[in-house]
Amino acid sequence: MATLGLTKPQRVVLFTEDDPLRLAGGRTLGPVEVAFETYGELSPERDNVVFVCHALTGDAHAAGEHPDDGRRGWWDNLIGPGKPVDTDRFFVVCPNLLGGCQGTTGPSSPNPETGHSYGRDFPILQMSDFVAVHRALLDHLGIERVMAAVGGSLGGMQVLQWAVEHPEQIEHAVVVAASARLSAQNIAFSAVAREAIMRDPDFQDGHYFESDKKPEIGLAIARMMAHITYLSDEAMTEKFGRRLQQGEEPGFRFGVDFQVESYLAHQGRSFLDRFDAMSYLYLTRVMDYYDPFADPDAVTRVAAGGTHFLVVSFDTDWRFSTSHSREIVRTLEHAGVPVSFREIRSPWGHDSFLLQPPGYHPTVQAFLDHADDCRAQRGGA
Amino acid sequence: MATLGLTKPQRVVLFTEDDPLRLAGGRTLGPVEVAFETYGELSPERDNVVFVCHALTGDAHAAGEHPDDGRRGWWDNLIGPGKPVDTDRFFVVCPNLLGGCQGTTGPSSPNPETGHSYGRDFPILQMSDFVAVHRALLDHLGIERVMAAVGGSLGGMQVLQWAVEHPEQIEHAVVVAASARLSAQNIAFSAVAREAIMRDPDFQDGHYFESDKKPEIGLAIARMMAHITYLSDEAMTEKFGRRLQQGEEPGFRFGVDFQVESYLAHQGRSFLDRFDAMSYLYLTRVMDYYDPFADPDAVTRVAAGGTHFLVVSFDTDWRFSTSHSREIVRTLEHAGVPVSFREIRSPWGHDSFLLQPPGYHPTVQAFLDHADDCRAQRGGA
Repeated sequence: MATLGLTKPQRVVLFTEDDPLRLAGGRTLGPVEVAFETYGELSPERDNVVFVCHALTGDAHAAGEHPDDGRRGWWDNLIGPGKPVDTDRFFVVCPNLLGGCQGTTGPSSPNPETGHSYGRDFPILQMSDFVAVHRALLDHLGIERVMAAVGGSLGGMQVLQWAVEHPEQIEHAVVVAASARLSAQNIAFSAVAREAIMRDPDFQDGHYFESDKKPEIGLAIARMMAHITYLSDEAMTEKFGRRLQQGEEPGFRFGVDFQVESYLAHQGRSFLDRFDAMSYLYLTRVMDYYDPFADPDAVTRVAAGGTHFLVVSFDTDWRFSTSHSREIVRTLEHAGVPVSFREIRSPWGHDSFLLQPPGYHPTVQAFLDHADDCRAQRGGA
Repeated sequence: MATLGLTKPQRVVLFTEDDPLRLAGGRTLGPVEVAFETYGELSPERDNVVFVCHALTGDAHAAGEHPDDGRRGWWDNLIGPGKPVDTDRFFVVCPNLLGGCQGTTGPSSPNPETGHSYGRDFPILQMSDFVAVHRALLDHLGIERVMAAVGGSLGGMQVLQWAVEHPEQIEHAVVVAASARLSAQNIAFSAVAREAIMRDPDFQDGHYFESDKKPEIGLAIARMMAHITYLSDEAMTEKFGRRLQQGEEPGFRFGVDFQVESYLAHQGRSFLDRFDAMSYLYLTRVMDYYDPFADPDAVTRVAAGGTHFLVVSFDTDWRFSTSHSREIVRTLEHAGVPVSFREIRSPWGHDSFLLQPPGYHPTVQAFLDHADDCRAQRGGA
């Protein structure tokens, strides 16, 4: 199948110090710069937009080949010519999210008041702050509505929040492996990850950016732990089992001996090159507090706005299990919101949303084809 | 129901420097001192012994009231007058295990060669080293065989190993919430815990005992993470849900806000007072490598020895799920070993083995009553 070629990373300043972003928590933030990529062509009617929201550690490079290092986008199997998010028909927009560390303003960005990185002075964010920035980016691109917003995990939560606040702007919402309300266990894993970062002596109360030390041990521990929760027990058994890294005989030693240990150590190490510990703190905390349906009017607003939903879960995902998706579906259905729901059989746990277990991509494709049909009918009417 | 009163902590040197313990890995260890407690009276025939093996962070104080601080034993609900492990009928022995830090020789004990704590010079242990010390303790007490050996989690693994090596010494084996072969996910959690400890700057390559710093951050992180795996998702939801520590309104801040965060922080902190990081490393590593049935003769030996088994699992235990117990049961049954198996419904996850979900204690009681009957019949013959 054809894939996208070289992509063109872009940046835009959407809010300035004089005209800052007003955050849900009451503070303001400016400047706000956003890194994003686009794929495909915007239709003359500007009605073929698919907005892609990334997960906790994703970035704007969702598809195609990065011009710097050639790496393919994190959702390259879903987005491209002839793929479910079909760049021959759709104009795809994917930004790095607010608070991140891959081009969009976050805790590592310079604080105009001090000239140094914000560090812990960066304001606490909420899910609707992500949406505000996404909307500003659309505005900048001259787009009023999106045919579809698509996201997995934290990306799905952004899509849900967007539909809760501005359903009139989202014709179709694809919410994959997400949650509208983290469980105590979900919060617990993130809490321990944050403890590992914040108690690292090199954390320096969040002001490590100007020093030559970073809380690398804490961030690696956080990442290793998170990786366990992204894979199912079955997937780990299939992928690693009890196989040893070298030879047949167990080494009876500390340090890496089993293959699964080597995998985790690698995941922890390589994460340090591409992710910032403060962004990890800020973004995980947004997820903990997220609870859109605590406001009983929220779902009524969605129902009035007319967004159609596709909610997808994976049967071995124990990070955001099917019960999380079912809760979203039940709440929406109860208010009369049109929802398609599909639990996909997949051995790969939470990571499944990035992979291609049978039935997953065809489900997304069918939903987006339907969205495209609606658009065509509207165009022809 | 009656409970045991004050208990009497005891210690005995079972191996000396001149007559050391020969470890499975080839090294020797001496002296080996063992802390233990006993409850009830040894019968004149010395045939009423129940040997209790503790889990990863347990100790010799399994039941009754500790004379120092009054705290009740960790299995006080199971062991006592009229309880399933009935101290009116049985003589109960519970030692702290080798490599531990609660009275029995471990990495924090003085190395006779240096006069300082062993630290990382302590030899790597294997499951059968625990059994060797248990057997030496029995020998010291003048006991040849035990009516039953009982253990949960790592305790159950010791019981299993004992039956694998010396089934003639164990008439009945009670193996609760255990595993004969850790999964990749099990190993992964322990690997990250060990990383947190070993990468703590205060770890000092395992020789922190003579300094005024200990890897407390690493050990607390390890404990917090482990605690998540001891509880089921459901149990955490019931126990904490998304409730906040104070008030109704979320604080939108880092640090402890949700009750589950407060619980984990407390678990991490209080663990530091009673457990040593090096013991944590050594004991978890024993579990990783444990794989008794990799030796195809092992189960044949059990079958020849005549040990009767009770294997118990809990349906929401995801640390050592029912599938781990089923593997033990299948392997034993296949070789013709008599096995009773019961999966208990319990919301509490792995922690269930320390609690009293319906059906659990009666199952253990019935098995031990049967063991007692066998004893009586033998006595009457």
